Amino acid sequence: MPENNECRRPIWMASGSETVQIIDQRKLPQQMRVSNLETVDDVIYAIVELMVRGAPLIGVTGAYGLYIAARNSKTDYPSDAYLTHEANRIKAARPTAINLEWAVDRTLDVVLSKQTAGERIESAKNMADLIGREEAENSRNIGLHGLALIKTISAEKGGGPVNILTHCNAGWLACIEHGTATAPIYAAHEHGIDLHVWVDETRPLNQGSRLTAWELGMKNVPHTVIADNTGGHLMQHQMVDMVIVGSDRSTLTGDVANKIGTYLKALAAHDNNVPFYVALPSSTFDRKIRDGVRDIPIELRDPDELRYIPGFEKTDENLLVPKHSPAANFAFDVTPARLVTGFITERGVCPAEESAIRRLLDEKS
Amino acid sequence: MPENNECRRPIWMASGSETVQIIDQRKLPQQMRVSNLETVDDVIYAIVELMVRGAPLIGVTGAYGLYIAARNSKTDYPSDAYLTHEANRIKAARPTAINLEWAVDRTLDVVLSKQTAGERIESAKNMADLIGREEAENSRNIGLHGLALIKTISAEKGGGPVNILTHCNAGWLACIEHGTATAPIYAAHEHGIDLHVWVDETRPLNQGSRLTAWELGMKNVPHTVIADNTGGHLMQHQMVDMVIVGSDRSTLTGDVANKIGTYLKALAAHDNNVPFYVALPSSTFDRKIRDGVRDIPIELRDPDELRYIPGFEKTDENLLVPKHSPAANFAFDVTPARLVTGFITERGVCPAEESAIRRLLDEKS
Repeated sequence: MPENNECRRPIWMASGSETVQIIDQRKLPQQMRVSNLETVDDVIYAIVELMVRGAPLIGVTGAYGLYIAARNSKTDYPSDAYLTHEANRIKAARPTAINLEWAVDRTLDVVLSKQTAGERIESAKNMADLIGREEAENSRNIGLHGLALIKTISAEKGGGPVNILTHCNAGWLACIEHGTATAPIYAAHEHGIDLHVWVDETRPLNQGSRLTAWELGMKNVPHTVIADNTGGHLMQHQMVDMVIVGSDRSTLTGDVANKIGTYLKALAAHDNNVPFYVALPSSTFDRKIRDGVRDIPIELRDPDELRYIPGFEKTDENLLVPKHSPAANFAFDVTPARLVTGFITERGVCPAEESAIRRLLDEKS
Repeated sequence: MPENNECRRPIWMASGSETVQIIDQRKLPQQMRVSNLETVDDVIYAIVELMVRGAPLIGVTGAYGLYIAARNSKTDYPSDAYLTHEANRIKAARPTAINLEWAVDRTLDVVLSKQTAGERIESAKNMADLIGREEAENSRNIGLHGLALIKTISAEKGGGPVNILTHCNAGWLACIEHGTATAPIYAAHEHGIDLHVWVDETRPLNQGSRLTAWELGMKNVPHTVIADNTGGHLMQHQMVDMVIVGSDRSTLTGDVANKIGTYLKALAAHDNNVPFYVALPSSTFDRKIRDGVRDIPIELRDPDELRYIPGFEKTDENLLVPKHSPAANFAFDVTPARLVTGFITERGVCPAEESAIRRLLDEKS
């Protein structure tokens, strides 16, 4: 962990060494545990087991994974075949977030263009560092663009508290700094805007109640944890002014894959005229898929994540369901573009319409 | 518990005595514990603390509460003022389910018409017994009417499994026998119809994963527990053929109060053309309220039900949220009539339209 013991990032290079370190997010908020990533298997394990999670973060972790692969090559020279094989293993760790594939491929492209072992290792590290810096900067800009939206709502309410609902954790723990969905919240809080966040618990792994509530508490942002079932009721009773969520993959047509349950909140927001925003960096857009509901792969995780108390041993006493009852654990769902008010990206805000999204993204290139 | 040790009802009179006994549902499925209700305070505690829950059951429990009040009168004669006072205390135990008020008032009306202490006690007991028998018979008929709907879907699917999603527990544990939402499921299962139930976990108190899954497992009904976040995704992918839920209070205009999160499932069902049925006895209709979203009182329960692992001690180790993060625990929400395909009552099935509901209910009187 950084020397002042104040963690600001979920992944970093250990000071004075070549070791990649992460916060093991599985035990938060009870325990702050740091882990070293020494091998590609460590990287894959960390991603699969959710020691690191969140689309931008697993992208950056995957890029560092390729650096670790290059460094750990058993031959003097990390060959194209070896690096490509390791890249494919890393990319297969989780299927839904596009950032993993995007960051690993981007790193691999650069690495394969280099000729010497030293250049390959160094370019991988440099690219992982760069992607991390870019995502931090993206989040900062997402915060500034989202801040303008919150300011407008605050003004409309005469300065009264802006109630923002969020689902899962799209905070700095999921990104590098600031977060995606939380970036506008942090920016508004720093600007002295009166706000309050409804934090969806986010079953089965409680990323909202464990991680988002912890992040917000650390920064003294007023918040209240609610069961995932609650958002509709709150919106019916004018207790939510806007929804901001992150995304693991979005299409250029505006469909949004995000943590399971996001779609239900989008339906409720639509039914109650509550603006529903998705905050994401450009790296989360998938340019190949057009129909998100049909074609974005949805990860089906171990049912025991739902059957046992999160973070507890798998004993009969810690079962949340009858011993012989099966469970199904779909990790994501897809919200159709028609339910999305707009995207908040590092380039600005745009509606969930293909022409607007393309215009925003292509201005960048 | 009944002598054969096979529980079929959640409340009963102990054999050969005048003691009202209940299953303490808080520890299910791990422990089957029976409690005696000896005083009105016992009755109120059992209702408030969810030892008994479910609209029909708390109605019957409330009626027995008035019997206990009459029997326990400190004066020779249980006066009108005393009984009315005790009735009001019982009715105030929980605000949302109309059945509690309905059953207590119905019992009180009869009791106050009697002149002697013995008649008052006996008439209260008889009325509580009668309401229990009526609710069991209502549930049986709800099952038969709902069976016809499931049969139709089964035929449309060529006999393939009918996938039914339910929220919370509206099973025999919530009623007296058969359940409301589960009654059609049990009837269809007994008729050999191939079906499978998606059981919403139902945070924060897990009535789905603890109670509904247990009930279904006891009767060998195929089922799978899911996080409350999951139903929308399943419906988008044609994995749900119908939704059946219970209700704690419904208006004659067709608005439905039920466990928090029901509204979100109704939105998803509507968005995906999945039929959304509400199974309830006539006693759950409130004839006084017209706008359910505006006027049905929604119980706000102890936030610690959400902050700690259900059924575990309130220690820091058992916190599900950061220690200083507040939580809000709304127990119910209201689904507007426009999202409800139909009501399944003991009188038959009708659409969620005032004229149809009135016709169905008034045929009864």
